Amino acid sequence: MNGHGFIAVHCGAGYHSDSLKKEYQKTCYIACRKAAEILKNGGNAVEAVEKAIIELENSPLTNAGYGSNLSWDGLVECDASIMNGQTLHFGACGAVSNVWNPISLAKHLCIKQCDNLSLGRVPPCILTGQGARLWAERMGIEIVENRKMISARSFRNYKHCKRKLKRYSLQNDIKFSPLDTVGAICVDSNGIVASGASSGGVSLKHEGRVGQAASFGSGVWAVMSRDRKKPSVAACTSGCGEHLIRTQLAKNTAESLLEASPILGLDKCFKEHFLESPFLWDVPERLGGTLALRFDSEIGEGELLWGHTTKTMCIGYMSTENERPKCIISYLPPKVEPGQKAVVSGQPFKVPIQPCPVLQWEIKTTANCNGSL
Amino acid sequence: MNGHGFIAVHCGAGYHSDSLKKEYQKTCYIACRKAAEILKNGGNAVEAVEKAIIELENSPLTNAGYGSNLSWDGLVECDASIMNGQTLHFGACGAVSNVWNPISLAKHLCIKQCDNLSLGRVPPCILTGQGARLWAERMGIEIVENRKMISARSFRNYKHCKRKLKRYSLQNDIKFSPLDTVGAICVDSNGIVASGASSGGVSLKHEGRVGQAASFGSGVWAVMSRDRKKPSVAACTSGCGEHLIRTQLAKNTAESLLEASPILGLDKCFKEHFLESPFLWDVPERLGGTLALRFDSEIGEGELLWGHTTKTMCIGYMSTENERPKCIISYLPPKVEPGQKAVVSGQPFKVPIQPCPVLQWEIKTTANCNGSL
Repeated sequence: MNGHGFIAVHCGAGYHSDSLKKEYQKTCYIACRKAAEILKNGGNAVEAVEKAIIELENSPLTNAGYGSNLSWDGLVECDASIMNGQTLHFGACGAVSNVWNPISLAKHLCIKQCDNLSLGRVPPCILTGQGARLWAERMGIEIVENRKMISARSFRNYKHCKRKLKRYSLQNDIKFSPLDTVGAICVDSNGIVASGASSGGVSLKHEGRVGQAASFGSGVWAVMSRDRKKPSVAACTSGCGEHLIRTQLAKNTAESLLEASPILGLDKCFKEHFLESPFLWDVPERLGGTLALRFDSEIGEGELLWGHTTKTMCIGYMSTENERPKCIISYLPPKVEPGQKAVVSGQPFKVPIQPCPVLQWEIKTTANCNGSL
Repeated sequence: MNGHGFIAVHCGAGYHSDSLKKEYQKTCYIACRKAAEILKNGGNAVEAVEKAIIELENSPLTNAGYGSNLSWDGLVECDASIMNGQTLHFGACGAVSNVWNPISLAKHLCIKQCDNLSLGRVPPCILTGQGARLWAERMGIEIVENRKMISARSFRNYKHCKRKLKRYSLQNDIKFSPLDTVGAICVDSNGIVASGASSGGVSLKHEGRVGQAASFGSGVWAVMSRDRKKPSVAACTSGCGEHLIRTQLAKNTAESLLEASPILGLDKCFKEHFLESPFLWDVPERLGGTLALRFDSEIGEGELLWGHTTKTMCIGYMSTENERPKCIISYLPPKVEPGQKAVVSGQPFKVPIQPCPVLQWEIKTTANCNGSL
């Protein structure tokens, strides 16, 4: 096989300590490499996004899958979602336990959107809690004992938070809520875009809480140009789940890249739809980040963009044409207070395109329509 | 007290059988009356919406609360949400069992958005499954045995569907998925708008499935004008949950009413954002309905609008100035196939306004900011 594509990942917008910087970058590096392999072997954008996020989930450093923040009762409950820009299907699981890779469950839900069920029933796009776990089990997705998903680091953090809470029950210290939701966006050989996100949620969250990584329009967005007149766009977000839900940052980010200058579009989006959003009128610190791309399938060229109002954001990206991924930590300028301003950057990229002769999403089909053309 | 306001409710866009028509209208009638009482006694829009939906949930006719469709395993799992147009806060519960009135749980979550939690934690806006039930229990919301939520009608329907399924395992018969999510929208004395929705979900749904009634932007929307230059809008939807999530029909509906002519805006919205939406490219029958309002608080005048692509939609509405609610069943024109075209209608209404001197959502406050000024 000789597939092409571009993959970008992030392991959170938040605060990455200097001592762990290299580890975070390495995690992004491996995720990019694994996803690029999938693309080179002819895998599609959805599969590459899944693979990248599996690597991020498996790392004990990130707040996703293994090593997720623990809930109030000391449990791991994960959110994850995936959106296919070609079919516009969305699959998400929320507050799910025991599933080793929540992103695989989200992918399955996304793919199954094409199925015809008996009695006119529609396949679910969002499954939560125990029902989500049962569905995963039936689909043959790996199920583990929940305590196996707790890393030493997340357990230490949990104990620390609980102790703090006991001592200063009204203290407000945002540092105890690491905002390291992970995400990935991708363009494949056929110019199909996809986006995925996975999160362990906020530390000490209430059982059953669902965050942006399982909410439509908030954690992920991916729309492929229907007529090739507009570019395709994809985005994934990180930050405080409730605030990202209210501002639907993924959708707004992706749409902002359709403006003449995507970087100016993204800057404006952060200002209007996040920092000055009426939906965050009562939020003193607006903490969020986004990783996004815009791709023109006519010429096989695109732009990767990222922006965040948090202290740092750790991202990695590579095209299948590159030998190795580039992994960086993006910083807010030194004098800027987190939550008050956004820093926005971008990079161009290329993908040799093998355009699909017919965009399958223009015709109703019972076949697997998740990008395998 | 001498409060004013306007309330509108619906008990579903779907197919209301002739034999039960009067019963459906009566249910809407009572819901409007109860909500109007709340408004007259000085209650705010959120409280009135909650009260109206409690009445609709308590009816065994509707697919919400008591009498909800049963899941594949014969359980009742409800979705509900509420949005406060003044604070822009949203509270939702998904796939929740044992809670007699899911809308009350959603309201509590919406109100609690104002709380400051220790360690910078943010109050959850969406809770699902067992966690949602536990939260309800702690808040003193009525908890019942789950079998008490199963009505004779919903149990008969469940048995019928299961039998059908056994006999014709691949049959597609949309009639077995009654789309009777309920909803309510309201304007109160202060010109505050709110919207709520409640649903038992589709028949034979998978455990843990979350539909539009618990998804931000899809089941409810309410935005109060910030500067009084634009009108306030509110909307709630009914139909196939997954399709309403993908099209974010509540948000799109409400925003369409900001056009010069709200009725033309709503008509265009149904065409562009639902019937011809790229998000429903693979859906042969696009079944949905929406109840919406636009209100100009400068002059105390507004318009109620509704539209649906389903055979029927049953709605009721009244102003506190009216003696009794008007309850009607809206029909698609006889020759129009359901799911292919929308019928859109409207009615003007008035509310004597006592404008709030300061819109509380423009200032950060720790006080209860859910409309009680």
